[in-house]
Order: sequence, then C-alpha cells, then structure tokens
Amino acid sequence: MDYQQLIERLYQETKPLAAQGKVASYIPALAEVPASRFAISLITRKQEKFQTGDHQMPFSIQSISKVFTFILAYKNLGAAIWDRIGREPSGTAFNSLIQLEHEQGIPRNPFINAGAIVVADIILSICKNPKQTLLDFVRTLAGDQAITFDKQVALSEKTTGHRNYALAHFMKGFGNIINPVDEVLDLYFHQCALAMNADQLASSFLFLANEGTNPFDQQEVLNPSRAKRLKALMLTSGLYNESGDFAFRVGLPAKSGVGGGIVAVIPKQLSIAIWSPPLNAMGNSIAGIEALERFTTYSGQSIF
Amino acid sequence: MDYQQLIERLYQETKPLAAQGKVASYIPALAEVPASRFAISLITRKQEKFQTGDHQMPFSIQSISKVFTFILAYKNLGAAIWDRIGREPSGTAFNSLIQLEHEQGIPRNPFINAGAIVVADIILSICKNPKQTLLDFVRTLAGDQAITFDKQVALSEKTTGHRNYALAHFMKGFGNIINPVDEVLDLYFHQCALAMNADQLASSFLFLANEGTNPFDQQEVLNPSRAKRLKALMLTSGLYNESGDFAFRVGLPAKSGVGGGIVAVIPKQLSIAIWSPPLNAMGNSIAGIEALERFTTYSGQSIF
Amino acid sequence: MDYQQLIERLYQETKPLAAQGKVASYIPALAEVPASRFAISLITRKQEKFQTGDHQMPFSIQSISKVFTFILAYKNLGAAIWDRIGREPSGTAFNSLIQLEHEQGIPRNPFINAGAIVVADIILSICKNPKQTLLDFVRTLAGDQAITFDKQVALSEKTTGHRNYALAHFMKGFGNIINPVDEVLDLYFHQCALAMNADQLASSFLFLANEGTNPFDQQEVLNPSRAKRLKALMLTSGLYNESGDFAFRVGLPAKSGVGGGIVAVIPKQLSIAIWSPPLNAMGNSIAGIEALERFTTYSGQSIF
Amino acid sequence: MDYQQLIERLYQETKPLAAQGKVASYIPALAEVPASRFAISLITRKQEKFQTGDHQMPFSIQSISKVFTFILAYKNLGAAIWDRIGREPSGTAFNSLIQLEHEQGIPRNPFINAGAIVVADIILSICKNPKQTLLDFVRTLAGDQAITFDKQVALSEKTTGHRNYALAHFMKGFGNIINPVDEVLDLYFHQCALAMNADQLASSFLFLANEGTNPFDQQEVLNPSRAKRLKALMLTSGLYNESGDFAFRVGLPAKSGVGGGIVAVIPKQLSIAIWSPPLNAMGNSIAGIEALERFTTYSGQSIF
Repeated sequence: MDYQQLIERLYQETKPLAAQGKVASYIPALAEVPASRFAISLITRKQEKFQTGDHQMPFSIQSISKVFTFILAYKNLGAAIWDRIGREPSGTAFNSLIQLEHEQGIPRNPFINAGAIVVADIILSICKNPKQTLLDFVRTLAGDQAITFDKQVALSEKTTGHRNYALAHFMKGFGNIINPVDEVLDLYFHQCALAMNADQLASSFLFLANEGTNPFDQQEVLNPSRAKRLKALMLTSGLYNESGDFAFRVGLPAKSGVGGGIVAVIPKQLSIAIWSPPLNAMGNSIAGIEALERFTTYSGQSIF
Repeated sequence: MDYQQLIERLYQETKPLAAQGKVASYIPALAEVPASRFAISLITRKQEKFQTGDHQMPFSIQSISKVFTFILAYKNLGAAIWDRIGREPSGTAFNSLIQLEHEQGIPRNPFINAGAIVVADIILSICKNPKQTLLDFVRTLAGDQAITFDKQVALSEKTTGHRNYALAHFMKGFGNIINPVDEVLDLYFHQCALAMNADQLASSFLFLANEGTNPFDQQEVLNPSRAKRLKALMLTSGLYNESGDFAFRVGLPAKSGVGGGIVAVIPKQLSIAIWSPPLNAMGNSIAGIEALERFTTYSGQSIF
Repeated sequence: MDYQQLIERLYQETKPLAAQGKVASYIPALAEVPASRFAISLITRKQEKFQTGDHQMPFSIQSISKVFTFILAYKNLGAAIWDRIGREPSGTAFNSLIQLEHEQGIPRNPFINAGAIVVADIILSICKNPKQTLLDFVRTLAGDQAITFDKQVALSEKTTGHRNYALAHFMKGFGNIINPVDEVLDLYFHQCALAMNADQLASSFLFLANEGTNPFDQQEVLNPSRAKRLKALMLTSGLYNESGDFAFRVGLPAKSGVGGGIVAVIPKQLSIAIWSPPLNAMGNSIAGIEALERFTTYSGQSIF
Repeated sequence: MDYQQLIERLYQETKPLAAQGKVASYIPALAEVPASRFAISLITRKQEKFQTGDHQMPFSIQSISKVFTFILAYKNLGAAIWDRIGREPSGTAFNSLIQLEHEQGIPRNPFINAGAIVVADIILSICKNPKQTLLDFVRTLAGDQAITFDKQVALSEKTTGHRNYALAHFMKGFGNIINPVDEVLDLYFHQCALAMNADQLASSFLFLANEGTNPFDQQEVLNPSRAKRLKALMLTSGLYNESGDFAFRVGLPAKSGVGGGIVAVIPKQLSIAIWSPPLNAMGNSIAGIEALERFTTYSGQSIF
C-alpha cells in the first residue's frame, strides 16, 4: 500500500472539516494554537515513516499522556491496579463527578480525568522523581530525547484546574488518593503539558503494533498479553464518552487529547498520529476522527 | 404552660433513645464527646428561661452556624443572594456533588455544605475581618460575649475536609466561588467550630421568635418579612435530607448540626435548643428530634 | 380585615401576570381553556365567603386531587402508609423516574405522580367502588353534591399518559403496585379529571383550617395531629420541585395542579383557592403564586 | 490448531466455575434449567465443527437475539437507525431508566433492553409478519429450519416484564416508540424466547467471521463495512455493563444472554458459542466468560 499517497489524500480531504470545530480555549497556551495546524504521521512496524503537514511541530498531548502514565503504573502494580480503578467505559463526560459519587471514589477507567489522577497518585508512590521518570519513559518509547514538558502549559493547567482539584479531593475523601493533592496534581498537570510532535507521538505508540516490545531498543514495554489488554481498553475508553461511536466508525484502539491529537494503532502493522486542534463537543479532534475513519475505509484495514 | 416540668419530662423520656445513634466520628474532637451528654434550654420571647441537663456545657454547633452566616450574607445582598444559591430542599445528602453538577455549580439551598461554602465566599467578599465579624454577630445574637471558636475543631475539620475542598473547587470551576478556596474554607471550618452551649444557642435564635428583632438589644436583625422567609427555609431545608420528615413529625423551623445540637423556633413564642450527640443515619441528633416531636405533641404548639 | 377588598386588589394586580405563563397543552381539554380565566375564592373558618372572577366556573383540579386521595389512604392505613411512600421533597421533576430507581420504587412523597399512583393503588385495595368513594368524599368535604369527574379529561389523560404508565409499571417491577396497572391508572386519571370551581375547592380544604374537622357537617376528617402533619407535607412538597421557593415566598401549606389551580390554608383562619391556567416552567400557576405571595404580604398573615 | 482438544480442555477447566454463579430466576422456565448444563460449539469459516457437552440442547438465547433484530432493522434503515438509538456503552445496568431520562428517551445502544425495544418497534413498522420474518432470518443464518420460539418463555416474560413495560411506555412518552406498547413488547418477548442450541448459535454468527456473507448460502447479510461496525458495537456493548471488562479480558466481539449463552467471533476465522446457565452479578455466564478468556489465551488469537 502507498501510505504516502493515502495520507496526502486524507490531508486534502479532511483538513477543511476542522472548520466545524472549536480549538480548546480553557487555557491561553491552547487557545492560541492556530486552528489550521494539521499533521499526519504514520510509522510501520518496520519503521518506515510517512509524514505530511505540521508533523514536526510540537503540541500539547494532554490526555494522550494518560496512556503513558497508565503503563508505568500497570507495569508496577499489575492486576492490583484494578482495586483502585475500573475498566468500564464511563458513559458520562470525562470530568464528571456523578459516577464517582455513585461508585464511591473508584473511577470508571484510567482514561477519564479521575482515573488518570489516581494513576498519578500511584506513580508518586512508586517513583522517587516521577516527572523525570515519566519524561525518560516517553523519550525511550518515542526514541527521541528532545521531548519536554511545556512549563507554561503546566502552570496554566494548575491555575484553571478547579475541576481536577475537585476530583482529587473528592477521591481523597473516599481514601483513593494517598499523596497530597497538590503533589498529585502537579504531576498530572505536567503529564498533560507534555509537548510532542506527530512523529514522536506515532513512534511512541509503535510498541503496541509490535506486541508490546519497543521496536527502537527491543525492550519489552508490556508483555504481549498486557499490550493486548491495553489496546482493548483504548478501544472501549480511549475517546472519552465518544469511544463507542469511534469504535463503530473507526474500529481501532486509539487515544485522543484536547490539544487536538489522536494516535491509533493497527496491531502488528502500524501506528498513526493525527493533529488538528479544532474539537467537537466531546473534546475530540473533528478532522482527526474523520481522517482515521477514511484511513480505515480507504486502506481496508481493521481489527474486525 | 409549665415549661420546666415539660422539659424535665422530655429529658427523662428521650435521653435513653440516644443509645440508638452514633456520635460523629470523622474528627477526634467530636468523637471524644461522651454520648450521654444531654441538654435542653428553652427561652420565651419574654426571656423566661427553662433549662435542664448539660445546658452550660459548650459543644460544636457545626451546621447550625449556617444560619448565622446566611443571615450576614442575606442582610448584605438581599434577594441578589439567590443568583448564587437556590432555596429548594436538596433531595440528596448534605455533601453530595451530584445535584451540583446537574445544576451547574448552584447549590440547592444555603443549609447544605455547598450552599454554606458559597455563603462563606460572599462574607469573605464583604467583610474585612470575617471571622471576627461572625463572632461579634453571634455574641450579639446570644447576648453573650463568651462565645468563641474551638481552634482545635477548626484545625481537625481542615485536615479531614476533603469533600468540602472538592465542593469548593467544583463550584469555583463553575465560577460560583470568587475568593481563594483555602480562604473560603478557613472561614467555613471556623464557623463549624463555633462552640456554644444550649443556653447560648436558644438565646441566639430568639430573634426569630420576635419577628426578626433581637430581644436583648432591640436591634432589628432581619425585617419581619425576611425573618419569616428564613424560618420557611429552615422548615424546608434545616435538617439535611431529613427535613421533610422533620417537618412532618415536628412541624417547626429548625436547624441541626452533626455535633448533636438542634435549635427550633415557635414564631412569636419561644426558641428551644437541644443537645444530644448520638446521630441517626441522616446526621441529626436522634434524641433531639424525638424530644422536639414530643415537645410539640405535649404542648400542643405548632405552626400548622 | 376586608377580605373582599383584598382579593379584588389581588385580582387587579396579578391577573396581568398570567401572560408570562403557558397553559398546559398535553391534552386538548386543558389546552382549550382560555388563558384569561381567573378566580379567587376565600372562605373563613366561620364560613364567610369572599369571591371574585370566574369562581363558579369548574376546571380540572389535576394534582390537587392528590391531597384528597392521600387523606383517604392515610385515614385507612395510618403510619403504615410510610412503608410504601416517603415524605421528603423530591428534588426532581414531578414525573421523574431517576429518584425512583435510586430508591427502589419508593416514591419520595404522595404529591409527586409516582406517590399518588401508589396512593391510588392503596385505595383500590381498600374500596369496593373507589371512584364513587372518592367522589362522595370530595363532595362531603366541599359541602356540594354537584362535583363530578370530567370523563373527557380522564380519557385524554389515559391516551397521553405514557409517563404515568411507565411510573406504574416501574414500581410494579419493584413490588410497590399491587393491583393491575390499568385499574390503578384508571382511578388516577379520574382523580386528575375531577372538575371543581374555586368556591368548591376553597370549601373542600377548609377542614384544614379547622384542625381536621369538616366545618359543614362537624365530622372529623383527620384528627388534629394528622391534620397538622398533612399541612406540613403540603408545605414541603405541595408545589412539585418549586415547593421550597413557594414556602420561602408565601409560607403557607398549599397544593397546586397543572389545570392552574392552587389552594392554600392558614391554620385556624381560612382557606383560599386561586385559578389562573397559565403555568410557569415548574407547572404551577404563575399568577396564582404571585397572588398568594401578595395575599400574605398585604394581610400580614403567616404561619411563621 | 487442534480446536477439539482445546474446547475439551476449556470444558474440563471452566465447567466447575459455574458453581460460583446463580441461574436466572425471574421466570420459572429459566429457573428450572439445571445449573450443570455446559456446551461449547465452535465453527470455522470453512465450516469445520468442534463441539462438546450439551451442544444439541436448546436454551433460551434471551439478549443474544438483540443482534438478530438489530441486523434486520439496520439492513432496512441504514444509518437512519442512529436517529433513534445511540452507539455508546451504557455505563449503567441493562434495564436502567436513569440514562434514558437524561437523554430524552434515546437508548444508549441497541443491546440494552431499551435499545432492543426501539429496534422491535422499528421491525414492527417495516414487517407485515415480524415474528415469522425474525424466525426465517435466524433459521437462514443458522442454516437450520428447526429453530422456534419457546412460547412458554415468551408468556412468562410478558407476565413478569414490568420493567420492560416501564421502558417502553417511558420512551413512548418521548415519542421514540411508534407502535402500541403491547405489540412492541409481544415481539420483544418472543425474540427473547428464541430457543437455540450452541451449534445453531455458533452457526448463526458465522457470517460475522466471513465479512458479512452467510457461508451457508453465500448471501450477503451485511456488507463488509457494516459487518465490521456491528462487531465493533458488540465489542463495546455486547455484555451489558461488563463490556469493558470483557473486552479487557477476552478482546473479542461477543453477545451474551441471561439464559447463560455467549457467542463470540474471531474475524475471518471462526465463531464460538458457549452455554452455562449460572450468571455473575452483571447477568453474564460466569463459566462462559472464563472459557472465552482461556480460549484466547491458549489459542493466542486476538483482534488486538
């Protein structure tokens, strides 16, 4: 398959659709990103690369980071992680407290905010220098030492993150946050502020197309069984409460962020990252979802 | 009516019922209060006093303080206060976030925690020295300068008050908290930590049996129309989500606290405070409610 | 007090406010009632009558009938009725199923639809001819044998009452409806279709201003204690989820219906019925509430 | 792979686990099924068959029928079906009304009861003889004309189906049920009462392992794109609110029923049906889920 031709076609066809969405505006650093940014980066298991648009321009990966921190915690705790987080789709908005109250402070899954905050709490308990550990981990996954936190974004998140403070205190009231809320959220806000470009993002998820082993250094990130399970979790819960719709339309394990990034994986084949900042009402990149739907349609590739 | 004989009878009959309840245990300062404490203090509009039991022993008034702070805010803002708080019974537990999410950060009424936190925020915006203002106000209402905050209780509230932090941050996310959360909760935790005895409590609510005018200094606390409205609010919302049940059984405007105090008013007649620490599942004094039900039955007094 | 002058003033001042509301439109028989209808009828404990406007014109009393059926069931079961219905304000819309699911089929109070359907089920179990029993009871209360069901309204209710069928089946699933749903709702739809004029309505509630005894025939309807409790229930739950607001503004035990009627009671004094079809968003008569608020303000009468 | 040896191993290992569950008891016809029944039936795309246990014994397929009716409706309406049903995991129990009230009568997906009732309503509008059409369709899919409805089960469903009546009336109130509730539920109760054995069940889902084309008659049931989408829907929503957990553990598109059946598909490979009546708290076959988890583990097959 001629992937370069395919992604160029996706670029032409779906970039205009971004006009229907709205760039995240809750912090200045996100609001100022031009709506016209657009990138597609695809990397195959054999490390062939196909790239177009603003693929070298870093952006805030936001919730996509929840996959990285989940892996760190899951590697350490194994199945014991499920004592503190569920693995069901949430059915409500990514920052809702309603489900959390009904279910006594146990978040539905690690990819809603509450779940990721519990994951951050776990990492804080197991790492001496959690922010550096996270950074090292992401750099290794992506095979690129240049990745950093955008400190300005992290600071903005902190000053506007009232809902996340509410979630963390709420769970602490239920005993599901161990460390001080300020420290937990400091890590959480930093992970959201990871700045990566589409190339780095595609590369960092390639291990999931390689049965859990990092193709750049041949180290096992997750064993095949856990890698498989993580992909199932991404399929059912990776796009907030649009996950069912995305599975229906696209049918690939994926994770999105309000910075406009989405990264998806075809097991044993490839990883693909798309970046287009304007979001739909669910907080996912409008053009990004459309591009991935067409990608599966045109390429005929699917897990189903 | 021989009120002294009546309250002695209530003391005999209802004190044993306290054994069915549980003393609040979320902070040591409350948990250590002996379950056997029991006080009744009644004061008539003409300032006749009838007292029995531990009526001079101070206890933590907790949520009863929500009436005092509400009055301070209501005097200042008048009807504009209803832009930020509702006046419907909550239908859910006193510290639930569910209703708050559905109604976009506007608490149902000023007597659930969320509502009282908004009231504290209002007071912070209008007072230079809010804690002193509150203390002066309560002392004047009670006609007793000895009333103080229990600093140890206030500190305990702070270290265990995760749910209240969650509520405050949650509402700040909706724009319904103006001041820094820490400052708002510092005032809130102090008001909960007001230490008063049953005599002081009964006296401090006597103005509501006197159409809004403080009988001790003849100053108008609220005008008659507002005093009437406050009593309606106490009737529909004064006992958390047991308010409907209490109205049905007792039928008097009242306010309770998890310290085991309840104070009720018969308009144009009297104010009565009861203290018995063991609580029912709704967080109200078991013996206190029973004593008030019998008080209305035996005395034949009612607003209905 | 010159009540005739007072109600004429209320007529003049509040009739124009009806223009802000909307007449109930879910059944033709209600939708066709002219929005300009307006009646006030007041009757004192001594049976002095003060009337103005369309006070002799019958209208559909709708939810006001829930008080009549509740009394029939309460007289029979006494406190056992609380095994099947709560007595807390609902906090949600009058026809919501959400609370009912959380609380396992036990309605919050007898004045929301679900509660009244349980009451209808109780009456069906205790009466041989429930519709005639209800009619006889209301006629006796009002001292007027002319009161009837509007069969056309009852039929319309039946054909559009999907939500009420849902509520009844839902509670039957929880075991809280004993009789066949069709029979229970047949009674319920008939009670809603009781046609009464403002004079009859005011008269039929006068026993609540007379400590439970029907002033027309001197028979006890409820004993004084139960009459008092019923009034408390009306105060906390009589106007759907606007009850708290109504208590705050008006401060009287009352019950409303979507036909535009409201009836209120001042204990030991009088009963007053107002009819103005246009409703606010909560389903209560806009002009009716306003007229009652001014009635208490101008007359200086209140239970608080 | 030696599938016969594999399913015998699953039989040995997982049959004992059924003892931890409880057979559905809400209707006699289900309650009387012996808990020890156990069947595994696997059929490959090339129609090789591997069977063990009670694989020829018919049982009530219950909710598995929701896939059959959904296909009938989806073939007819295409994407227009999504105007009346969502495609997100529900997040709440299969028969909950809460989500339905929040979302104005639009069920979350076609595999919860409310969704399947809307599907039944659609079929009623498009078929002259809906029950016969459904039966013909299932017989053709399974390549077996012997399949029938269990009339006794259908009748039992009707007499105990209060919650389903509530759901149907509730949605009718929102305008999302067109036909009379009794007719819609008659079809719904019949589909639940389809009696099939494990062999028939495995065969009837084989078209989903064959890109949408029935391998027995080479007719297209769904085009490849729609077949793919249906499998995505089964993965995210096929096991009630245990779907996320099942995806995590097993990772295959599947559908379960309270009769104890589960059928799963490996795209382009095979279909497998398991029957073991005892259920877990979510209403899914305990041993069935465990057998499918081990099936993917031992065979190393997965879509991820």
